[in-house]
Amino acid sequence: MDGKIVRYKKDSEYSYTLGMTLTVELIALCREKIYKVFVHPEYVRKEDTLDIFSLCEKSGVPCETDGKIFRRLSTKENVFVIGVFEKYSSSLSLDASHIALINPGDAGNFGTILRTGAGFGFRDFAVVRPGVDHFDPKTIRASMGALFHSRCAYYNSFDEYMTCFPDHTVYSFMLNGKKSLQEVKKPEKPFVLVFGNEAAGLTDDFLDYGESVYIRHGGSIDSLNLAIAAGIAMYSLSDS
Amino acid sequence: MDGKIVRYKKDSEYSYTLGMTLTVELIALCREKIYKVFVHPEYVRKEDTLDIFSLCEKSGVPCETDGKIFRRLSTKENVFVIGVFEKYSSSLSLDASHIALINPGDAGNFGTILRTGAGFGFRDFAVVRPGVDHFDPKTIRASMGALFHSRCAYYNSFDEYMTCFPDHTVYSFMLNGKKSLQEVKKPEKPFVLVFGNEAAGLTDDFLDYGESVYIRHGGSIDSLNLAIAAGIAMYSLSDS
Repeated sequence: MDGKIVRYKKDSEYSYTLGMTLTVELIALCREKIYKVFVHPEYVRKEDTLDIFSLCEKSGVPCETDGKIFRRLSTKENVFVIGVFEKYSSSLSLDASHIALINPGDAGNFGTILRTGAGFGFRDFAVVRPGVDHFDPKTIRASMGALFHSRCAYYNSFDEYMTCFPDHTVYSFMLNGKKSLQEVKKPEKPFVLVFGNEAAGLTDDFLDYGESVYIRHGGSIDSLNLAIAAGIAMYSLSDS
Repeated sequence: MDGKIVRYKKDSEYSYTLGMTLTVELIALCREKIYKVFVHPEYVRKEDTLDIFSLCEKSGVPCETDGKIFRRLSTKENVFVIGVFEKYSSSLSLDASHIALINPGDAGNFGTILRTGAGFGFRDFAVVRPGVDHFDPKTIRASMGALFHSRCAYYNSFDEYMTCFPDHTVYSFMLNGKKSLQEVKKPEKPFVLVFGNEAAGLTDDFLDYGESVYIRHGGSIDSLNLAIAAGIAMYSLSDS
């Protein structure tokens, strides 16, 4: 990794974790991708927590004290540890159920969906472009580190995704879905839960892909927040 | 309302809606609290939407074009309408089920919970101080206007709340709750769903208030996001 590490952009070759908790997850799950862990000169080990220097040493991860990178990368004052890592690609598991996000627009929502997915056994996420970036530090932060437990893959269209996973049963979540979530029985075979963009939802093409599903709610709101809708669906159709 | 309108603080006597959609909800539901609607000089009526000037005239709401207030109050570039209104207090309904938030810390989460609540028939929100402010413009924005459909009241302790609503059955959501959400049968009588702070959750005192409930999830995450947990609970125990 050459040159100075600057604030994340979508085409950066690296991303980073801001804060101790996320960096500990990164070290535990993606050690071989880490370029370096940076520690703020004012870092003080808290009682009952790991010491970042000993953790890095034990894990064979390069670690250095550097105040300047914090001013460049972090907008929050309470960040004392940053883990810089090389971005990597992953493939979705053929045997697992998936979550598909069509043009997701908000990094915080995406991160929250990754976190909720990790809780309910969904670790495979298909994103149809254009969409927010799973390596955006905002996504990583909202995921609370669940990103490192997950596999994310990008597609140019939902048809492209379907070509790769033709046997996944499709459940498209739409305000005008034909079946209520309560009527959906969790299928035996792997399936995919599809959610549209925060503002636009799914287009009516998705009525024909498989089963279209709505989450019953009252008329005083137009729709549920994307992460809430996905959370309710994952809870309802999880194994736990 | 005297003097210049400045950026919101917790002790401000007024708050404001940023954007057309929220301001339309404000006019529809809280017309008598509105001080004035401000319109940006570059406002252009979109096709298929209401015209803010005719809406204000029809509703008897004062309206003026002023660019400066947008620079003072708004951090987003796509805001062309601001509705300034006087803050008001409300009392919770004795006959309705409630949501209680103990020391909520994030305005976005609170707004999302208000929005989800409006979808699932929960319109009464008790907040135990210290906690974020339901009139914070960030809360209003995340609520998508649901705030104006809701009643929020503040208490110094949960005991103070219980003194006011002694007959509400208490369901405290805790990682170490005694019963799974799936086992909870929606009671006939009004009830209250209690959620703790984003980072700290509820203290063990809440094990003894009524029934303590957990939402089953896998071990790879410490907890669900607050708004997600509240969303799943409201969905599970709503009438719809």
